[in-house]
Amino acid sequence: MTRWPLPEPMRLALAEAARAANEGEVPIGAVIVKNGDVIAAAHNRTRQLPDPTAHAELLAIRHAAETLQQERLDGCELWVTLEPCAMCAGAIAHARIARVYYAAPDPKGGGVEHGARVFEQAQCLHRPEVYAGMGEAEAAGLLRDFFRARR
Amino acid sequence: MTRWPLPEPMRLALAEAARAANEGEVPIGAVIVKNGDVIAAAHNRTRQLPDPTAHAELLAIRHAAETLQQERLDGCELWVTLEPCAMCAGAIAHARIARVYYAAPDPKGGGVEHGARVFEQAQCLHRPEVYAGMGEAEAAGLLRDFFRARR
Repeated sequence: MTRWPLPEPMRLALAEAARAANEGEVPIGAVIVKNGDVIAAAHNRTRQLPDPTAHAELLAIRHAAETLQQERLDGCELWVTLEPCAMCAGAIAHARIARVYYAAPDPKGGGVEHGARVFEQAQCLHRPEVYAGMGEAEAAGLLRDFFRARR
Repeated sequence: MTRWPLPEPMRLALAEAARAANEGEVPIGAVIVKNGDVIAAAHNRTRQLPDPTAHAELLAIRHAAETLQQERLDGCELWVTLEPCAMCAGAIAHARIARVYYAAPDPKGGGVEHGARVFEQAQCLHRPEVYAGMGEAEAAGLLRDFFRARR
């Protein structure tokens, strides 16, 4: 059986996640696409910087805003390997990201379909379209291998 | 009648908020204190940078982590003029901030006592002590004047 190939942005996000693991960071990667072009790619760097806010999504959003020289990333897509946490979901809403694609759900730390459910709150001023599940096995595998090796 | 003076960190946070207004940014300020010393002070800079994540709390947390060269701000206090949004509440939890003092509640955008209620979720791995209300009139006044002038 041949699996349908993952979309290019998700493959890039997974490559970013693998890069994080090689650097001793929790393997999560994110990519931002505008009009079909990748304008930012990042992975978790909380330990290296050190910066507790340096999640893949937040770094990618900051980079994209700097690149475009605008606070709002209207029309942009964010592709990320794990369900965003409450912090990152909030950042996605502030950035006006149009669509979010995430690979694996995160029952323990997610803030989209779990816990804070940031986009479902009346206080959320922008709700992106959300698509989940593409690349879930690959994304979850990277995380599992990373934490297994550290036990 | 003489009002009880505000604690020094909240006065500094209000001064940061006033600075933001002078720069055309939404007037919100934040200060981080460790062992009685101010180790970071910041105000909203989303427009100037531009960076949709550049809320006062997030900038203060990043600055404090860089100063201390550690990802976790154990034992630190965050003083901020407005109830943190979901993004900032998430960042506060990731940073392991011990205590949060905020001046004004934010029914429209807050994520602590409103909306996402980030610290009340099972997915929140660290719950700071939260104290609200000190300096509320001053903080809300700065915001009201700012938005009134822009209408």
